[in-house]
Amino acid sequence: MLYTKENWGSVPEGWTRTHLLGLEDLSAEEITILLDLAQRFREDVLESEENRRKIPLLTGFAIVNLFFENSTRTRTSFGFAGRRLGADVIDFAAGTSSLAKGETVLDTAKNIQAMGIDAVVVRHVCPGVPKFLADNLKNCAVVNAGDGTHEHPTQGLLDMLTIRRRFGSFKGLKVALVGDIAHSRVARSNIFALLKLGAQPIVCGPSTLVSPYWEEMGVKVCYSLDEILGEADVFNLLRIQFERQVVRPFPSIHEYSRLYAMNAERLARCKKDALILAPGPINRGVEITPEVADGPQSAILDQVTNGVAVRMAALWCVLTRSKENASAS
Amino acid sequence: MLYTKENWGSVPEGWTRTHLLGLEDLSAEEITILLDLAQRFREDVLESEENRRKIPLLTGFAIVNLFFENSTRTRTSFGFAGRRLGADVIDFAAGTSSLAKGETVLDTAKNIQAMGIDAVVVRHVCPGVPKFLADNLKNCAVVNAGDGTHEHPTQGLLDMLTIRRRFGSFKGLKVALVGDIAHSRVARSNIFALLKLGAQPIVCGPSTLVSPYWEEMGVKVCYSLDEILGEADVFNLLRIQFERQVVRPFPSIHEYSRLYAMNAERLARCKKDALILAPGPINRGVEITPEVADGPQSAILDQVTNGVAVRMAALWCVLTRSKENASAS
Amino acid sequence: MLYTKENWGSVPEGWTRTHLLGLEDLSAEEITILLDLAQRFREDVLESEENRRKIPLLTGFAIVNLFFENSTRTRTSFGFAGRRLGADVIDFAAGTSSLAKGETVLDTAKNIQAMGIDAVVVRHVCPGVPKFLADNLKNCAVVNAGDGTHEHPTQGLLDMLTIRRRFGSFKGLKVALVGDIAHSRVARSNIFALLKLGAQPIVCGPSTLVSPYWEEMGVKVCYSLDEILGEADVFNLLRIQFERQVVRPFPSIHEYSRLYAMNAERLARCKKDALILAPGPINRGVEITPEVADGPQSAILDQVTNGVAVRMAALWCVLTRSKENASAS
Repeated sequence: MLYTKENWGSVPEGWTRTHLLGLEDLSAEEITILLDLAQRFREDVLESEENRRKIPLLTGFAIVNLFFENSTRTRTSFGFAGRRLGADVIDFAAGTSSLAKGETVLDTAKNIQAMGIDAVVVRHVCPGVPKFLADNLKNCAVVNAGDGTHEHPTQGLLDMLTIRRRFGSFKGLKVALVGDIAHSRVARSNIFALLKLGAQPIVCGPSTLVSPYWEEMGVKVCYSLDEILGEADVFNLLRIQFERQVVRPFPSIHEYSRLYAMNAERLARCKKDALILAPGPINRGVEITPEVADGPQSAILDQVTNGVAVRMAALWCVLTRSKENASAS
Repeated sequence: MLYTKENWGSVPEGWTRTHLLGLEDLSAEEITILLDLAQRFREDVLESEENRRKIPLLTGFAIVNLFFENSTRTRTSFGFAGRRLGADVIDFAAGTSSLAKGETVLDTAKNIQAMGIDAVVVRHVCPGVPKFLADNLKNCAVVNAGDGTHEHPTQGLLDMLTIRRRFGSFKGLKVALVGDIAHSRVARSNIFALLKLGAQPIVCGPSTLVSPYWEEMGVKVCYSLDEILGEADVFNLLRIQFERQVVRPFPSIHEYSRLYAMNAERLARCKKDALILAPGPINRGVEITPEVADGPQSAILDQVTNGVAVRMAALWCVLTRSKENASAS
Repeated sequence: MLYTKENWGSVPEGWTRTHLLGLEDLSAEEITILLDLAQRFREDVLESEENRRKIPLLTGFAIVNLFFENSTRTRTSFGFAGRRLGADVIDFAAGTSSLAKGETVLDTAKNIQAMGIDAVVVRHVCPGVPKFLADNLKNCAVVNAGDGTHEHPTQGLLDMLTIRRRFGSFKGLKVALVGDIAHSRVARSNIFALLKLGAQPIVCGPSTLVSPYWEEMGVKVCYSLDEILGEADVFNLLRIQFERQVVRPFPSIHEYSRLYAMNAERLARCKKDALILAPGPINRGVEITPEVADGPQSAILDQVTNGVAVRMAALWCVLTRSKENASAS
């Protein structure tokens, strides 16, 4: 069946938001709507010879990638997702822009909006910038592509999709987030989603990078990777965010790696079907060794494919509701 | 009515040019043709739910943004304008290009043309580069997106459209250009257009930045903003072009701002329907204060939308004539 | 006749490769297939008013320009070629990418592939990177856009097409490659193609930049341009690759230019129909003087147009076979 705007169906009624700012705000039902749609986009579009090229759900819509932090990977993923839906996607390189001439973020966004764009995908070093833009732009959907150490909702969703595709459900799953929890928006988005979906998140890393207060939210806190090897079903190995650290949280990369890297020896002590995740770009030999990264339990590249599917779902949902609101107002 | 190439109509007969190099060259009739078309593009395409996505007037045409100076804003605006007309728009980032290997501007342009492009949108720090390319490229339309301190015709046109949409006509209107007149191509394009269209331009700024010789062209020259507050219908508040100044033309930004910033107190002394324009990016607190920039008399974001409309009109007109000439020759 | 995917025809049976890594690997027949197709793309698409805009042979395919070395010119040419065929082309700027965060080239490529792209056009300073990617990516066509001093196959092909369009055949033609042979991937791709196609390559330049061992491959080696002026049918004037030289191979640019620049005086001593080629960007006054570069015997801009045609042929061939293999496996 060749999908068109007509026969693909509508955005589920349970989805009402015009922005995707974080997973903390979403209900389990809303997260599940996005995961179900992403699963469908993956199977029926990305993996369908008939439909994989394009599905014209957002034909002619204009999306701007407004990235104030460099990120070719996430930017390209959103770019592919938008284009697969038929939208025009324009990269707005903040480094070479009028921001260098002293313009505020909001002025930049309002200017882009005045040119007639329909959605802004925004990444910024300051937590809250996507929310700020969502509050101040009119008839323009905002998708958070990472705001400081706050949230990175599409990364959280793609991790959830990867887990669900492997285990079927989240009930009772133990998911370990390993590494630099303190500076990781990925960890935060994962934790919010896992708690809502009924899984048990475990945060694990050096005590300088893992706050004990996570326990108050129902997260298990642990400072030794070796202790939880046999317990967790999923290990999400976070990248050390050197660029966000203001003080050095451990003596050396070598020391970090000796204690927290997932290597073949550690993997052998894990459950047989333990799933290995890592938000790219991975540092081979730091948080993960090559034999694990490229091994059969690694879903790292599967995460990347799921990322495109999740972003298609998110863009389609928020843009559809945003346009409906604009017409109604 | 859904517009197509067939039912949209033809480029008006009064338009014969294959390039848009500056407003100094154009007659009042030619400027009016572009403004009328831009008005139509704004109403019938950009603001029409039925047509706003795309109008296929330039489907398959290839346009290159050849920007030797950084400008995300103008470049993005031309990019949207071209894509709305169905053209392919490719950014040619001069900084990372073969220019760094010692190639001349003309060789770069000829190479791009040999790849089969139909139009070049060019910005360069040297006045005259667009004219030089227009003289030396064959079957290729050239649009000036700003050449040094010379002209920025589409900015001039979008200012005119914004003024006309507010006041209906130009006859007898007094339009003050405030600030760094000496380094402003925006001021020059505005002055040429205003004089042709029957308005009275006033240039106002520190005597180091405002030449008295403008009076010979019929422009009123004034060194005090306070003196003309009650007189002008429009205030176009130019950005201080720090990057173009070779000597420091005033003691401090604070001093400049105290004398020439449009603030609430000054706005209260203006005519009730005085229109506030500013070519972005604005420096809040320097040439304009936030309460004015975001107030009801400000048309700053309206200018941005008009910019896309004006660029659609310009690209469609010059590309159409350029292709007709190529076929005839 | 308006061409579509159906009536344009199929990729010739003699073409079986899913990658284009270099001309050394190709047979004369394979090179001829690409030249014949490129000739057809040039005449029936690029120069046809009816078809020139687009021919939808790769509609919906996604191509990534993965350039680890700066090159606006080649990147833009591949971009135009892909878009003319209907593909989506995305530039992946390696400088601002996750590579800066320590990712390996292969991880970057695998990530891009996992997003669902169909072909990678790769340029890298290290010889062998395209081969390495071809060996390690699945169901993804790889085109070499220049790897260190190794090969630049589409440049070699466009030079061959330019020669063939002028002389009809290669038999007995003497083609001089002048300049920095040691650092030139263009020279290598030219030599491989010329030898296979039956022409006689001559390498000519300072002895510090021309190895005598080329003679073992059947290439004539010569250290004086003046000596071969009357002998060669084609002069391909290579750019001095200052950026690749680790020791200074000649005393000064002035000295190089005095001995090896093609100027009007030297051109007068060449055969009347001698053809002048130069891979851009040219350095006017170094390897070629303006009166020669812009003169009637220069085919420099013709080379650029042929470059788009050759890249259309290469992308169409390798992508078609790559997709067939993916379906079959």
